[in-house]
Amino acid sequence: MSHDSGRGGREATAFVPGHVTGFFSAHPADDPAVAGSRGAGVTLADGVRVTVEPADRTELAFDGRPVEMAPVERVLDALGVTASVTLESDLPLGAGFGVSGAASLGTALAVNACLGGGRSENELVELTHVAEVASDTGLGDVVAQARGGLPIRLEPGAPGHGRLDGIPARPRVEYLSFGQVSTEEVLTGDTDRLTRAGERALDHLVDDPTLETFADASLTFAREAGLLTDDVAEAVERVADAGGTAAMAMLGDTVFAFGTDLSDAGYQPDACRAHPGGATVVSPPADAVAERPDG
Amino acid sequence: MSHDSGRGGREATAFVPGHVTGFFSAHPADDPAVAGSRGAGVTLADGVRVTVEPADRTELAFDGRPVEMAPVERVLDALGVTASVTLESDLPLGAGFGVSGAASLGTALAVNACLGGGRSENELVELTHVAEVASDTGLGDVVAQARGGLPIRLEPGAPGHGRLDGIPARPRVEYLSFGQVSTEEVLTGDTDRLTRAGERALDHLVDDPTLETFADASLTFAREAGLLTDDVAEAVERVADAGGTAAMAMLGDTVFAFGTDLSDAGYQPDACRAHPGGATVVSPPADAVAERPDG
Repeated sequence: MSHDSGRGGREATAFVPGHVTGFFSAHPADDPAVAGSRGAGVTLADGVRVTVEPADRTELAFDGRPVEMAPVERVLDALGVTASVTLESDLPLGAGFGVSGAASLGTALAVNACLGGGRSENELVELTHVAEVASDTGLGDVVAQARGGLPIRLEPGAPGHGRLDGIPARPRVEYLSFGQVSTEEVLTGDTDRLTRAGERALDHLVDDPTLETFADASLTFAREAGLLTDDVAEAVERVADAGGTAAMAMLGDTVFAFGTDLSDAGYQPDACRAHPGGATVVSPPADAVAERPDG
Repeated sequence: MSHDSGRGGREATAFVPGHVTGFFSAHPADDPAVAGSRGAGVTLADGVRVTVEPADRTELAFDGRPVEMAPVERVLDALGVTASVTLESDLPLGAGFGVSGAASLGTALAVNACLGGGRSENELVELTHVAEVASDTGLGDVVAQARGGLPIRLEPGAPGHGRLDGIPARPRVEYLSFGQVSTEEVLTGDTDRLTRAGERALDHLVDDPTLETFADASLTFAREAGLLTDDVAEAVERVADAGGTAAMAMLGDTVFAFGTDLSDAGYQPDACRAHPGGATVVSPPADAVAERPDG
């Protein structure tokens, strides 16, 4: 292996799974690495592909259109670089899929790969978590997206502060989005009721870490926290009538369920598997190191 | 989702990546959940596929042949079940690929999926780690295999005790095995010299968590710990002559390198990618829940 590999100036690509939170409690703190949420969710094989190229001026594009994303810009600032960041995803923004967390974490991983960061995975996850918390765009997506699977956030915060577990299953997930809910509006509002409901849900899931209990606890949380939208409430009823369980993506006007519970109720949802293993660098220069044709 | 799903009596399958440790230090403790190793390694897309079927008497087969594996039997005991366990792998046993850890962790995941364990991922990893430590077959493979990627074991032990980080890269890995080294013999012998060399290597990697430093630190460790076999030493020389870096799998008479470093030196190694994300359940009943055709 040549010793300048992984330190070059070429582009690099990372993939980060989407993440749907089923329930959560908010835990603010002065130190954004300590702040975060407890709760549980599902990472999705559908996610965000992030390509970073060194550039004199930072530019972001999401599915071909210029976009501003505060946490992505904070990540670039923390890494001390400017870059052209290309984001590609089938997931909608602002609908509870953790797209901003995915864009930010993918940017951190890809910058580290092509601009010679030399940081560890925990360091990249921490600085991304801090960028999300500082931007009021999320409290728990980034640590979950770094892990993959169905993460349970036992304690809030970045690696070294937070603590994670997981539900040992990789089910099919169906989801359907009716529109946006502002994460910032909910997170900066009164979160006491929400947090009490979230902690009850977490107790239930820790007692029985299965898909069934996760779905039940998530639906109960959405009702108790008073966050259920009209469209999601109707979908939940129709799925229940068909013998299934659906819940709401926190925070988006989005309903999700396992298996075929939404299709069985007559919806035409999007579907994918739970993501097996979390965010990764997927292409050069790590790949170039691995397969350089010229030895 | 039907409420008895995931609790049935059918078979289940899990996949666990192989794991090559590049360097380590041994940290015994009275509590096997606290005991373990610090160090770093590479998880492999080549691994062990474990299928578990409920049975009145425990039977293990590895690639079609009956086999005894103490840690797998300890896992079944800890879960209070008997089962037929079918292990399939292209990796050789006893050659430093973490096959016993993979077989044990896959058994835990698959039993939980088909025999109604209701345990969390951390609980399954912990009881498997304890089974490996108690069997003297490994100290760090299981926590690494649960995580995937290129795990750095910062602190020894099961989840809740140990602490992990990772190198943010997913390179191609080449490997070639010349034979076996007894893990038990090394681990139950004098490990002081090995542990000092392992801690120096870990300091280097934490300072610069890159593939280059991992490969260099691993090779230095094998030399300083006095573990380099004749065949591996010769391969390391030939790879260095061709401008690359190779190191030794701990513990096996096995050489590994990134990219095409072994091929470039004239060897015909096996090759695969680093495993992106760690051990998972891959088939029913989690799958059956997800895709049950009868609604």
